[in-house]
Amino acid sequence: MNWVKKDLLGIKGLTKEEILFILETAESFKEISLREIKKVPTLRGKTIITLFYEPSTRTRTSFEIAAKRLSADTINISASTSSYVKGETLKDTAKNLESMRPDVIIIRHSMPGAPHMLAGMIDSSVVNGGDGSHEHPTQALLDLYTIKEKKGRLDGLKIVIIGDIIHSRVARSNIFALRHFNVDIVCSGPPTMMPPNLEELGVRVEYDMNKAVEDADVIMMLRIQKERGGTSYIPSIREYSTLYGLKASHIERAKKDVIIMHPGPINRGVEITDEVADGPYSVILDQVENGVAVRMGILYLLTGSAS
Amino acid sequence: MNWVKKDLLGIKGLTKEEILFILETAESFKEISLREIKKVPTLRGKTIITLFYEPSTRTRTSFEIAAKRLSADTINISASTSSYVKGETLKDTAKNLESMRPDVIIIRHSMPGAPHMLAGMIDSSVVNGGDGSHEHPTQALLDLYTIKEKKGRLDGLKIVIIGDIIHSRVARSNIFALRHFNVDIVCSGPPTMMPPNLEELGVRVEYDMNKAVEDADVIMMLRIQKERGGTSYIPSIREYSTLYGLKASHIERAKKDVIIMHPGPINRGVEITDEVADGPYSVILDQVENGVAVRMGILYLLTGSAS
Amino acid sequence: MNWVKKDLLGIKGLTKEEILFILETAESFKEISLREIKKVPTLRGKTIITLFYEPSTRTRTSFEIAAKRLSADTINISASTSSYVKGETLKDTAKNLESMRPDVIIIRHSMPGAPHMLAGMIDSSVVNGGDGSHEHPTQALLDLYTIKEKKGRLDGLKIVIIGDIIHSRVARSNIFALRHFNVDIVCSGPPTMMPPNLEELGVRVEYDMNKAVEDADVIMMLRIQKERGGTSYIPSIREYSTLYGLKASHIERAKKDVIIMHPGPINRGVEITDEVADGPYSVILDQVENGVAVRMGILYLLTGSAS
Repeated sequence: MNWVKKDLLGIKGLTKEEILFILETAESFKEISLREIKKVPTLRGKTIITLFYEPSTRTRTSFEIAAKRLSADTINISASTSSYVKGETLKDTAKNLESMRPDVIIIRHSMPGAPHMLAGMIDSSVVNGGDGSHEHPTQALLDLYTIKEKKGRLDGLKIVIIGDIIHSRVARSNIFALRHFNVDIVCSGPPTMMPPNLEELGVRVEYDMNKAVEDADVIMMLRIQKERGGTSYIPSIREYSTLYGLKASHIERAKKDVIIMHPGPINRGVEITDEVADGPYSVILDQVENGVAVRMGILYLLTGSAS
Repeated sequence: MNWVKKDLLGIKGLTKEEILFILETAESFKEISLREIKKVPTLRGKTIITLFYEPSTRTRTSFEIAAKRLSADTINISASTSSYVKGETLKDTAKNLESMRPDVIIIRHSMPGAPHMLAGMIDSSVVNGGDGSHEHPTQALLDLYTIKEKKGRLDGLKIVIIGDIIHSRVARSNIFALRHFNVDIVCSGPPTMMPPNLEELGVRVEYDMNKAVEDADVIMMLRIQKERGGTSYIPSIREYSTLYGLKASHIERAKKDVIIMHPGPINRGVEITDEVADGPYSVILDQVENGVAVRMGILYLLTGSAS
Repeated sequence: MNWVKKDLLGIKGLTKEEILFILETAESFKEISLREIKKVPTLRGKTIITLFYEPSTRTRTSFEIAAKRLSADTINISASTSSYVKGETLKDTAKNLESMRPDVIIIRHSMPGAPHMLAGMIDSSVVNGGDGSHEHPTQALLDLYTIKEKKGRLDGLKIVIIGDIIHSRVARSNIFALRHFNVDIVCSGPPTMMPPNLEELGVRVEYDMNKAVEDADVIMMLRIQKERGGTSYIPSIREYSTLYGLKASHIERAKKDVIIMHPGPINRGVEITDEVADGPYSVILDQVENGVAVRMGILYLLTGSAS
């Protein structure tokens, strides 16, 4: 197929074919990061801006490495520390940046829909690097990539997502993506962290984590967003950890070849024990590695270098 | 002509020929940003440092993009967040950086004359990226570039500059540049924001904005520098906006093909209404686009790559 | 010889041969920074991350310039301003970064031994860019490089180190390095700033600075680390300056061709007078220049590009 979309704003707007096409494209880029010379000239002469209104190290670094390995020029704008950008409307910042002719702007913003607004205003491609508790499409894509890589397929799997579902853009994007496949998605977590009508998204809810993980092929843990006030929805970190922290006992209830995922950074001893995070079922670091490949693929597709 | 100056410190030290030569050079670089592959090898192997003692996103980004499209290596030093640089004299920072053999240092500093001091101490080329309320030469050059591009000429134009003239390095640099041409420069703004003896610079003063804009070819709005205490010179933002904010009614008094300029970032509803800022006469985004071309031209000339 | 070590963690683990080999390698890179085109393709396609948990401008800039002149891709992570990295264990940050396949991580951390921990956990090469008051190996290497360059040799020299010895990673790394040679190392400074058992390191202690500098070939001044509470060990800056600040009178007591060194940034009028810092014996800026060459050499050796 040919990629035609200008932007990657969310999983919601993607077809199953588009999702699979991104994963396929990413696959062809993965081995570049394993070479002696980790660089191809594909995006030479392209300008890629990261515009982050929220602090982020790992996502920004992942995008920056992806862009550089494709030989693009990268410009980092940390709007969280930039007073000029702060006093300006997002539209003015967008139009100004567009005037400098970037090919792609990767935006992270606390406001849901900010990337969509941006994309509607400018000709440059826009990638959603996380917008509030709305979407984080590149995370979901790297998660699917990792599941597919480890399991050989997506269809037929039982995938359990555990934690602060309601505030999690990672959960939302993953659910939107996984719904395209014949999977059994189960969400678990404290009732206060479950969105109402979750079932309407085609997801089962199981408050008892022990039951939720039963026969799971994939357990996807979410991060307690301490910095977003996530802890105000639970009595205490200790109780959360007791009821919804992933422990070795849960692994035993899951399938023998279960994989454990987490978008990072992990709160050790809170949503996951050291034993599990560092254990043989954990694919957390594979997710990070695949993140670079997936972002390379996306930058490649959006810049039209494919055609 | 051949470029011989080591630095670009201000418009004041430039001849008319030099100004025109920079504009001409910039012109040859403008189309690079419109190519599929926005990169030429001209400054390969050159090291360009941005040393910003005041926060800035747009100017730093513009210089960084300009440098990268010329294939230079760029290093960003944000001295406003760097405690090491803070405790050090500017001279020591300068001599230290020089020892690392950069080709160009672009400095922004709150102290008028800081770039001149720097230039006198080191062999590397120095570009003034804004020094207090003194000069902002690359802004004036991109403004002239834009006027010339839109009007086909500089001579014979009526150019009105409106706002906080006394604190504006943009106004100063523009006046210094425009004086070389046969133009009618009119300044308008609250009396408290007008420098004494402005007429000595060859500029007319007209406090009544309605009169000032009459038959104007170019209206150049200045930014109210809230962050520099600019509002203490006026009774209130509301009154300022009423008396000196640019509105559609002013456009009607100007020439039919008037252009509206602003160095950005704009305070919408203060010095300019949305209707005007986003209207057909506005060339604000052209200024941003031309900024990259002008800075490419300047970096090219200063690094002697022309010879 | 062939370089075999994965990391550069400290001077302590280096043999004399390895030290000399680094200096020799650096020498071959020094002239690159003096060329018109200051860039060689040696590290093309390598990814180098600076991970700085303490603010630093000069060391980070020096490494970044070194990497870029070798054509490596550089990623800066300022962990001091990154909330994500802060909440994460160093191990998790390390493993995450490793998953993105960097070739070298340069780490600065307030905790002694942090780089060693990092190096033990990941396959990427690790360079210690300063760990608390423990080691700063690249500084010592550039210091030795500068001494050798100016004196033609290391053996037979009298080298005096003056100041806050106990808190200085620069002093420690230099002592570890210089001990491999037939040099007379003398430390001077206030008794409260002298580590106990300093003599066990093969160093002489002479509290009287006038005696210490007598016939010195090299005087290495240390920085008063105001930001590390270094001033709490002395009655006052004024008294420190009187007793241990380097003045012209000390130069007269030293060898005629003494060289004056300082790792920077200098506190003028505290540990060194302007007259001496800017005088003919000062090699402070040569140290900065050599820093780029030494770091180029180290990056080259660690990435195995030598083989």
